[in-house]
Amino acid sequence: MTKKGIDLIEKEFKEYVKKISAYNEALALIFWDLRTGAPKKGVEQRSEVIGVLSSEVFNMSTSKEMESFIAELSMEPLSETTNKMVQVCKKDFERNKKIPANEYKEFVILQSRSESAWEEAREKADFSLFQPYLEQIVAYTRRFVEYWGYEGTKYNTLLDMYEPGMTVDVLDSVFSELRSRIVPLVKQIATSEHRPETGFLYKEFPKEKQHQLNLEILKQLGYDFKAGRLDETVHPFEIRINRGDARVTTRYDENDFRGAIFGTIHECGHAIYEQNIANELTGTLLDSGTSMGIHESQSLFFENFIGRNHSFWKNKFSLLKEYASEQFNDVTLDEFYRGINESKPSFIRIEADELTYPLHIMIRYELEKALFNGELEVKDLPGVWNEKYKDYLGIVPENDAMGVLQDVHWADGSFGYFPSYALGYMYAAQIKQAMLKDLPDFDGLLEAGDIAPIREWLNEKIHKYGKTKKPLEILKETTGEGLNVQYLIKYLEDKYKEVYKIK
Amino acid sequence: MTKKGIDLIEKEFKEYVKKISAYNEALALIFWDLRTGAPKKGVEQRSEVIGVLSSEVFNMSTSKEMESFIAELSMEPLSETTNKMVQVCKKDFERNKKIPANEYKEFVILQSRSESAWEEAREKADFSLFQPYLEQIVAYTRRFVEYWGYEGTKYNTLLDMYEPGMTVDVLDSVFSELRSRIVPLVKQIATSEHRPETGFLYKEFPKEKQHQLNLEILKQLGYDFKAGRLDETVHPFEIRINRGDARVTTRYDENDFRGAIFGTIHECGHAIYEQNIANELTGTLLDSGTSMGIHESQSLFFENFIGRNHSFWKNKFSLLKEYASEQFNDVTLDEFYRGINESKPSFIRIEADELTYPLHIMIRYELEKALFNGELEVKDLPGVWNEKYKDYLGIVPENDAMGVLQDVHWADGSFGYFPSYALGYMYAAQIKQAMLKDLPDFDGLLEAGDIAPIREWLNEKIHKYGKTKKPLEILKETTGEGLNVQYLIKYLEDKYKEVYKIK
Repeated sequence: MTKKGIDLIEKEFKEYVKKISAYNEALALIFWDLRTGAPKKGVEQRSEVIGVLSSEVFNMSTSKEMESFIAELSMEPLSETTNKMVQVCKKDFERNKKIPANEYKEFVILQSRSESAWEEAREKADFSLFQPYLEQIVAYTRRFVEYWGYEGTKYNTLLDMYEPGMTVDVLDSVFSELRSRIVPLVKQIATSEHRPETGFLYKEFPKEKQHQLNLEILKQLGYDFKAGRLDETVHPFEIRINRGDARVTTRYDENDFRGAIFGTIHECGHAIYEQNIANELTGTLLDSGTSMGIHESQSLFFENFIGRNHSFWKNKFSLLKEYASEQFNDVTLDEFYRGINESKPSFIRIEADELTYPLHIMIRYELEKALFNGELEVKDLPGVWNEKYKDYLGIVPENDAMGVLQDVHWADGSFGYFPSYALGYMYAAQIKQAMLKDLPDFDGLLEAGDIAPIREWLNEKIHKYGKTKKPLEILKETTGEGLNVQYLIKYLEDKYKEVYKIK
Repeated sequence: MTKKGIDLIEKEFKEYVKKISAYNEALALIFWDLRTGAPKKGVEQRSEVIGVLSSEVFNMSTSKEMESFIAELSMEPLSETTNKMVQVCKKDFERNKKIPANEYKEFVILQSRSESAWEEAREKADFSLFQPYLEQIVAYTRRFVEYWGYEGTKYNTLLDMYEPGMTVDVLDSVFSELRSRIVPLVKQIATSEHRPETGFLYKEFPKEKQHQLNLEILKQLGYDFKAGRLDETVHPFEIRINRGDARVTTRYDENDFRGAIFGTIHECGHAIYEQNIANELTGTLLDSGTSMGIHESQSLFFENFIGRNHSFWKNKFSLLKEYASEQFNDVTLDEFYRGINESKPSFIRIEADELTYPLHIMIRYELEKALFNGELEVKDLPGVWNEKYKDYLGIVPENDAMGVLQDVHWADGSFGYFPSYALGYMYAAQIKQAMLKDLPDFDGLLEAGDIAPIREWLNEKIHKYGKTKKPLEILKETTGEGLNVQYLIKYLEDKYKEVYKIK
């Protein structure tokens, strides 16, 4: 092909991708709106709009035009960005093209029905209402895996969707190591005599004051309010609409301020990732976080390694007291720090503490793996769920709403997603360790309230690349090694032995 | 064509239209978001999204596919809804098809640049900053009119875009009649000795209390909060996203509560129209108000014929006092009524009172007519504007921000739009007169706070039809006659003679 011919095709390809990107942006805004206050009566029609725009994205990503862009541009030496764009589109094309269009459409419809069924089932704590939908969702997904093909085990194909390159072999190994070290620690804590005071956590903290505090903390962490906003929702989330518009939400409990503040700090980590992706990636499909795992590493870095750090609160404790009026007046910084780092087995994943959180993920991982590798059926999920909670955490949920029905992920077919949370946690610990080489006085920075060097380090090493680097590439370049669970284990052991005064 | 063939084409046509409708819905949500709090840094990229979606709508409305739908379905006996859909699409097709695609694209880009230039010019009160953009906008619009063709005068083509069927002949006649009766009344008022007390209007009314009052008033008027929401914006507006989602906004001035409350009631009228369009019109492009004029008739009906009515306040005065604390304690209902109905010449259209408002519109109408019928150039606009304000209202703006630069309409090329406001006002007065035949005790209903029969009457006669009836058809069927300016004249004369005690 002549240079001129290729230049023209490249230009057309970029225009084509910009259009896909525009539809995605419109969809993101619709999702944000649906969760932040869209009037009920408009929702049904809005679902039609989602259907039209999603189908358009699906159709464009599998079109003959896309096919020929990929064929013509894959062979040519182009700019690095264009190469990555072609790679991303090729992956999507190959994955989507294998699904018959009518099955994709049926699946999209099933997803929304299944989510409604799940909502009702969870409300009534009755798995049987959800079971038939989940069975269909699993059946479709199993069929899709057959279409897509797999290497090693079938579940690998699902893992790869959220964390490119991740496999059951890797996860089995790190999870087993992690589990073997966490479970004994959880048991030691259960019998420790040095339990933190926690009564002060549950005193009344008015919503409006919490809101003001959360805004201030976001500002101090470097969340850019010119490129985002904070709203209140039932389930907190971060959503990237474009790189200049990464919105966060939180939820206020007047009798436990922790949900809002740590939720906000968590979502802030996601948003700061998106807000700092290089401007030139706008509209290329490369202008968002590279994977769920790396994304979660940023949110957990902020939530845990910054937000639950002693030095951070040494700096922020007086600010907290300002907004909270009397609640912490008789509490020392150390008591506060130990209080917010209490660890105990609990039923609900999103409310779990740092130490037990990975166990919640491992349970889900094992169930998903068994479901897709042919060792478990949907009807047996509630029973096996409860057994595993007994086994890993020593507790049994009293009903399915507290158990197998608690998360929305399976209802919309997001199998393979959960492990990203634990991966992100391991990545975060590993990244923190690497950061210490450049910023050895990490704690001193937090104590001085000087977050900028930390944020800029993350911008430079991770954020700015968007999807131009794969997750394991980022990990390797940033930390000098592949996934290594030891950093997280050391962090948890050091921290919790100190909090619980375990020798 | 066989019946079966036509059925299939009709089905495909409806799917096609549903898709256009979905894009329009996404665009409407984007516009709402841009005005209610979208972060600044996301705006540039969002403009790209608007460009992509608008072009898609333009392309679909002028495509070969659309051409053949129209050709094949125009000749066949179909359901009334399908017939109307075809008519609406045909009108769009014929209008859009005549504009070369590249000129349309240039014009869209020019519009957004021109709006920015206008904003700066208004801020600096310097018409020269805006003039070159406005000259281009006018040049494009003049060329479009040539493409579109015209009957009678060129300006007719622009009028028809907002008010199908409206012509310069009709407007010249009603405006001249209206002007000949309003101007003497304005002069009588200027010399009246019976001036209303107005000091109490400007006392401090805290924003949060105003917000609560506005929510309550919306509720009592029958605004459906399950199909809408109230937000705060710099410029109040109503926007229909779909018929189950018609949002309103308002603006609070702590030293003049009128702006918010009357603005809210006005937007409520627009929203109640959209919320009550028949469900079966969803996704047909017929599921919104039939014209700007009829739309404005509904907002002005609510704002003036309900919201500035003595009986309405007889019912709501105690509610107002509840929210306003002390402000009205020493004010009688009659004083209040006269106060909110003060009339005096002023510069800013959107702040004008009921009586002088039509004069602001007539000035704009005459300028637009002269611009497009070749009797005026852009550079002469400020001078002629000021002359007309002197002539009609006896006042001369001290700068162009208070004068020719005050409205955004011309900046984005909305020529022919202004007359809709005055038409809507005339329609509203005429509709009110017709309503009295069915609801002779209109004032009694307001006094009892019983808005439902009034709202239902409007639902039944106007709202439910959406775009299935043309504006003049609605007017004729509802009032039994064509446009008749006498009802508005009588209303204004009766009301203002009473307020100002003119014999």
